[in-house]
Amino acid sequence: MSVRHLAIVGLGLIGGSFARALRAAGEVGRIFGYDPDPQRCDDAQRLGIVDAVYETAADAVRDADLVLLAVPVLHTGEALQACLGSLRDGAIVTDVGSTKQSVLRDVAAVCGGLPAWFVAGHPIAGTEKSGVANSLTDLFRQHRVILTPHDGQDAQARARVAQLWQAVGARVVEMDAAAHDAIFAATSHLPHVLAFSFVDMLDRLDHAADIFPNAGGGFRDFTRIASSSPQMWHDVVRANADAVGGLLDRQIEELQRIRQLMRDARWDEIRELFARSRAARERYLAQIE
Amino acid sequence: MSVRHLAIVGLGLIGGSFARALRAAGEVGRIFGYDPDPQRCDDAQRLGIVDAVYETAADAVRDADLVLLAVPVLHTGEALQACLGSLRDGAIVTDVGSTKQSVLRDVAAVCGGLPAWFVAGHPIAGTEKSGVANSLTDLFRQHRVILTPHDGQDAQARARVAQLWQAVGARVVEMDAAAHDAIFAATSHLPHVLAFSFVDMLDRLDHAADIFPNAGGGFRDFTRIASSSPQMWHDVVRANADAVGGLLDRQIEELQRIRQLMRDARWDEIRELFARSRAARERYLAQIE
Repeated sequence: MSVRHLAIVGLGLIGGSFARALRAAGEVGRIFGYDPDPQRCDDAQRLGIVDAVYETAADAVRDADLVLLAVPVLHTGEALQACLGSLRDGAIVTDVGSTKQSVLRDVAAVCGGLPAWFVAGHPIAGTEKSGVANSLTDLFRQHRVILTPHDGQDAQARARVAQLWQAVGARVVEMDAAAHDAIFAATSHLPHVLAFSFVDMLDRLDHAADIFPNAGGGFRDFTRIASSSPQMWHDVVRANADAVGGLLDRQIEELQRIRQLMRDARWDEIRELFARSRAARERYLAQIE
Repeated sequence: MSVRHLAIVGLGLIGGSFARALRAAGEVGRIFGYDPDPQRCDDAQRLGIVDAVYETAADAVRDADLVLLAVPVLHTGEALQACLGSLRDGAIVTDVGSTKQSVLRDVAAVCGGLPAWFVAGHPIAGTEKSGVANSLTDLFRQHRVILTPHDGQDAQARARVAQLWQAVGARVVEMDAAAHDAIFAATSHLPHVLAFSFVDMLDRLDHAADIFPNAGGGFRDFTRIASSSPQMWHDVVRANADAVGGLLDRQIEELQRIRQLMRDARWDEIRELFARSRAARERYLAQIE
């Protein structure tokens, strides 16, 4: 058993799934949880995902040797602040935030520099559903987890976190935090903005009520991520605003270019663009988990 | 058995799936096929989807009592033109095109007016895969098929086509062609443009090679339709350019508005937009097939 006492701060989809998965792998003794939402605390206890919930993060982490911060990413600093006074010696703290430069910056601000015992991480897994009640034991299996090490990080702490992710079936990759944020702005953050904006645009059309009942499978998949947590994605886009904003500018330019091709009836170029896009997706598909 | 001889002009995903489904339902005697691509003809014969393939559309339809035109939508007129001289008396011709005003216009141009025996249809089903080799017996089960009747259409011809779609498990809905095109510009045509353009934008980034291997499930679903046939979607967007273009303008405006909200750090409004979008999708999700 790798973790005697695990504390989960934030009983959402990811926190709950990590608890379930580690328990199923036989890698954890007791699991304590904290969430400001009493409903999530009830769900986590009722479903047997945690052994106990506490009224404060400080109480939940008091005896933990591993603390997982699984909160909307801009709440990372505040969550860590709440734990700091009651962390035991040797405790490791790790997170699951979708942006890593902001996490390292916020952790450093709370701790007066980046502590050796903090391990920044990001599992590339999830669903559009939120909350511990939707958590899944197999969520991380055959998915990537990115760790973004910092100078002065305890190598043993990092190895221990990596080993836990591997124990729940994930593949661990290390990456620079800035590179991480640039990549996931493209593959994840911008698509969420585009999906949210597309559904909102349709919903504000006069004939919206006729549109949605006639949607098919392509629409459902294209908009699936628009059912994701508004708070979580607000935090992500805000925390990685420079990278997301830059790509959004590129996307707007691309759409304006296509619109102009349509106006100019340059249809061959549009077909070539579609063909190029399909080829790119097919070329890379084998690399997508 | 409802159809003695079925002719499929265009051995793609839809044509092949219709042949498979009708055969499985025991509703068809012999099936003849035509496609300009010899590979697709070979596939259709090898897989037993058709009983025979012909070198020309005219030969394939000669003895058919039902002809299904299943070609990229701007090829509908040309395909029908090729059949016209050899259609037997009483033959019904139907199509599966994603745009219906263009189909009715093109059919009328070829026939000098809309014939009583033509039934314009559109099954709301498909996958991102193309070609008869990817066809599926159950593709239409529990999916909608839209018929867009025209003045002077033979009611018996329409009822017969409707009955065939019902026999393969589909639900038939009738709609005005202009309403159809406005609705599917929103739920289907524009999302394809957005998905193609998004993948193309990413592929042209300097760090594209780092981006794709790090994509997760959200990316895969969001971009799935970018693996669709470039020729088919070129035809659809071109055939419905006014409706798609108008919605693309709205989408560009919506993205510019979000970009401005980001620049102005009006993050509460962005969270509200995300929440509104999620609520709209959830509200309508039960209505999506």
